[in-house]
Amino acid sequence: MKLVLCSASPRRKELLEMLGKDFSVRVASIDESFDKSEAVDKEIRKIALKKACAVEMNEDEIILSFDTVVVDGNQIMGKPKDRDEAIKMLRSYSNGNHGVITGICVRTKDKCYTDSVYTTVYFRELTQREIEYYVDTYRPFDKAGAYGIQELAGSFVKGIDGDFYNVVGLPLCRLCEILRDEFSIDLF
Amino acid sequence: MKLVLCSASPRRKELLEMLGKDFSVRVASIDESFDKSEAVDKEIRKIALKKACAVEMNEDEIILSFDTVVVDGNQIMGKPKDRDEAIKMLRSYSNGNHGVITGICVRTKDKCYTDSVYTTVYFRELTQREIEYYVDTYRPFDKAGAYGIQELAGSFVKGIDGDFYNVVGLPLCRLCEILRDEFSIDLF
Repeated sequence: MKLVLCSASPRRKELLEMLGKDFSVRVASIDESFDKSEAVDKEIRKIALKKACAVEMNEDEIILSFDTVVVDGNQIMGKPKDRDEAIKMLRSYSNGNHGVITGICVRTKDKCYTDSVYTTVYFRELTQREIEYYVDTYRPFDKAGAYGIQELAGSFVKGIDGDFYNVVGLPLCRLCEILRDEFSIDLF
Repeated sequence: MKLVLCSASPRRKELLEMLGKDFSVRVASIDESFDKSEAVDKEIRKIALKKACAVEMNEDEIILSFDTVVVDGNQIMGKPKDRDEAIKMLRSYSNGNHGVITGICVRTKDKCYTDSVYTTVYFRELTQREIEYYVDTYRPFDKAGAYGIQELAGSFVKGIDGDFYNVVGLPLCRLCEILRDEFSIDLF
């Protein structure tokens, strides 16, 4: 069976490489707009499923797709549209906590399984200067929630409750469990 | 002020680089043996302090030192001495949780501050094959506790409670807080 990652994200590619297995990358563009009237975990699985179904697949392939958002209170934080929005998002995380949720879809020729993984992230108190320095230096405009925990912003994080790699965008542990328990695929 | 990292660990060097500040590395070898009759958090701070005091320092330098151990029940897990011990350690983590504790010491010419940071790590159930594959492929003999969460073994981790970077060996967030609150040093 051949693994196919449905994601253009270099961070997801790096994470999947941690498993030490060959895979290819195949991406189809879909409408990723979020229906805010739906429960977040349901909606995020729907988008992951949409991504997995939008690519062509061969009989011997396993399609893996993911979608990640940040949830702060009732607000869904997508990619910030500009500097001001990124700063506002980070300020809202300061000295508090927010959630990161990733939808997963694993699809083979005869089965399709979706799930979601939730991690709580606790930020220390940030100064306005730190926030502006981070946004101006790292320009996190391609990141849902306006930060990457694997770079400088990792030093903003007092702690997390849940899977770290889920926060980066690919919940590796849950993926291995799904492959083993739902698809009888042991990677090792 | 110039940062000096007292550690030969390439992982700690990479983590400190995340802050984007220049620093030098200076290491003195000390006796790192652990007094198991003492409380772990006290003992780990003592070792960090010992490391920080063993290097020469200039007046304008800030010495940063760390020591990390894994605690599983009442057992202190250091670096495994061979394949069998590494396998035994990983088997003991499977489908359970253990702690990772890092001692920190920050030292300037007129002040020395020590602290410790604790993170709980939850492993999924591992098969004997996975454990052996990991040990034989990654040879984690230089790692306290016999695994690195930043490589394949990251997929063994269901979740953590606390700072991820503490598990890697350098609690970045706490370090920034100590520099700011105890030494009035804002890095940004």
